[in-house]
Amino acid sequence: MNIKRIRTAGLVVVVAMALAACGNLKNSSFGSNSTSTTTTGSKTTTTTGSTDSEFYQGVIKNGRYTTSKSRGVVVAQNDNVMNLKSFETGLLDVSKKQFSTSKYVYQEGQYLSTSTVQNWLGRKSKDNAEGLNPVNNGKKDADTRNPIYLQQLEEQDYMIQSGSKLSLGGVTVGLGMNSVDYYTKVQYGATYETNISDTVLTAQGKKMANTVLQRLRQKSALKSVPIVLALYKQSSNDSLVGGNMIAYAVSKNGSTTITDWKPLNWKNYVFPATSESKNSGANSNDESDFSSFKSHVQNFFPNLSGVTANAHYKDKSLSKLSVNITTKFYSETEIISFTQYLATAAKRYLPSGVPVEITVKSANGDVQSFLARTAKGSSYYTHVFSDQGND
Amino acid sequence: MNIKRIRTAGLVVVVAMALAACGNLKNSSFGSNSTSTTTTGSKTTTTTGSTDSEFYQGVIKNGRYTTSKSRGVVVAQNDNVMNLKSFETGLLDVSKKQFSTSKYVYQEGQYLSTSTVQNWLGRKSKDNAEGLNPVNNGKKDADTRNPIYLQQLEEQDYMIQSGSKLSLGGVTVGLGMNSVDYYTKVQYGATYETNISDTVLTAQGKKMANTVLQRLRQKSALKSVPIVLALYKQSSNDSLVGGNMIAYAVSKNGSTTITDWKPLNWKNYVFPATSESKNSGANSNDESDFSSFKSHVQNFFPNLSGVTANAHYKDKSLSKLSVNITTKFYSETEIISFTQYLATAAKRYLPSGVPVEITVKSANGDVQSFLARTAKGSSYYTHVFSDQGND
Repeated sequence: MNIKRIRTAGLVVVVAMALAACGNLKNSSFGSNSTSTTTTGSKTTTTTGSTDSEFYQGVIKNGRYTTSKSRGVVVAQNDNVMNLKSFETGLLDVSKKQFSTSKYVYQEGQYLSTSTVQNWLGRKSKDNAEGLNPVNNGKKDADTRNPIYLQQLEEQDYMIQSGSKLSLGGVTVGLGMNSVDYYTKVQYGATYETNISDTVLTAQGKKMANTVLQRLRQKSALKSVPIVLALYKQSSNDSLVGGNMIAYAVSKNGSTTITDWKPLNWKNYVFPATSESKNSGANSNDESDFSSFKSHVQNFFPNLSGVTANAHYKDKSLSKLSVNITTKFYSETEIISFTQYLATAAKRYLPSGVPVEITVKSANGDVQSFLARTAKGSSYYTHVFSDQGND
Repeated sequence: MNIKRIRTAGLVVVVAMALAACGNLKNSSFGSNSTSTTTTGSKTTTTTGSTDSEFYQGVIKNGRYTTSKSRGVVVAQNDNVMNLKSFETGLLDVSKKQFSTSKYVYQEGQYLSTSTVQNWLGRKSKDNAEGLNPVNNGKKDADTRNPIYLQQLEEQDYMIQSGSKLSLGGVTVGLGMNSVDYYTKVQYGATYETNISDTVLTAQGKKMANTVLQRLRQKSALKSVPIVLALYKQSSNDSLVGGNMIAYAVSKNGSTTITDWKPLNWKNYVFPATSESKNSGANSNDESDFSSFKSHVQNFFPNLSGVTANAHYKDKSLSKLSVNITTKFYSETEIISFTQYLATAAKRYLPSGVPVEITVKSANGDVQSFLARTAKGSSYYTHVFSDQGND
């Protein structure tokens, strides 16, 4: 093959169609390949292909990924990066309850622009009538000031294929609510905290979600599609885990109010438990399985500095375990042997029936090897990174 | 399960045996599980288990990995970390020609101690009669001084199982030879270079390998086992790829000299080619395949800063392709979609029939996702790292 960079529109169509024809790799039940290319005038829409039924396919237009209209808004607003990642993966998980990965194609939000989201996230004021956060009452005291309740907001679009075109099948909007609002009394001054109770956080979130729903229903494209609204509780900046989805609701048939909220009992814990994180909601069998794994693994190798895990629970059942191992290896052969040992030890000691991923990193953060098993799998997939030295 | 850290020897035996019983995960043709535990007095020897027939199993004694007797010697001596990794993986690859992964178990070198290796790597002198590098002739000029030819040396042991015990089946020793020797004329002074031609490097390496062989044969345990000697040409410090194995020889039946060297035509290249690295030995079809892949991938996403690959050749055929992609993502959903797209694009554009690994990293070096396909595979394994935020 000797295809150089192709610039003309006609050729792009050919290449994009050819690409679409190999879009479905495995497990994807997303229609037939022949229907995954849509041509509107000179525009060609395809999908990314799916590697796993766990994931949605994404929308490609003219060979380019369709990025969000409000791309980048949330980034500056989260000091704890775990809140960013778990908010987004949580939103995808909530969306799967309404929009099946086999029927819907994922598209980054196209209906809320950067300026809209920025205005909504702001405080209500004379200049910003649309601000969802309360007016600044001028007070500086943690308990009398009006905190910022709403920290991040994200729109996700779910497309359906009918015949040869993709059309909007539904929208999910997530509201990330602060459990702690960090503020300064003077510019560049010390940071203070206003704690927000679950009761207040939930009530504020539901109220704001209703406002968001009414505004979305005013857009003609969103008049009647199903809209999922989800509330996320941000974890504090010093938390080792991200926050959790706490409730969601589905608005159907163009309704403009929601009252039927479904609570979500999703939790994240760090293993092993520390004195601060008592992990009261985690299953003690899972913790002791992990502790067996940890002690065997630490015994195996002289320079192992840390073995921890993020344990994700849904309704008190372990739903995913992510193990992080930090170590100091002298040689590639040590990494290979250690990785093989991990596959054996993980299979023996870690809980079965849930997805497990294990990442081995050097002290300076380079990933050295990686293991993963799916919920249904019995063996671990392993990979040793041998070729990433000087980049 | 609720096994806490176990300290008594008796219990360790039980646990180690239980562990051995789940050692073989898949593809491993290494005997039966019941024979992989060896008990000598209170010592218990097991193996790591193997995840892939591509890898050797490793030796575990009393639950601990058997580390090298000269562990850590090489580390300080290589400014180009690529030389470390590719030296070790190269040595494993050479060893596989003599010691099959299905019959032999890997053990880190146990016969050469740290001080022995340090002495051998030193210059010959009054204080160090064993130094393999030439005496310091006192000259400072690049072409008249005696350079350091031998930069690193590693021993690898290959064990065989007979009945219920592991015994030494053979040894591989690799000699890492400098193509450039970096030196200073005064302490902490500027760095100068002595270039060493392939002819000189190879001649010196063969001579030193014979000396090493004679010394090894004097150890009673190494009197008659097969010994593989391998020469590695170190790449320069500014190279983007590691060096290459250039020749190897097998000493059998206790022989103390080698004359029958087999040349190895193994090369590493960086794609795309730069003006310095013309990649004259790489296959131009492989390069244009990669360039198609690169241009499609870069077109797909707005913030893609780099798409490069390390291409490994054996005898002018591509043997492995490692693609590194650096990018700036705003969201987890972008990473997921991009990874799915990569699986589609890689399957379409990258060469088939060779192992391919693709690593997607953020600008600050965090691995965001990873894809790999084996030589025989048609689909890519994909993994998106979603759970590594604040560690």
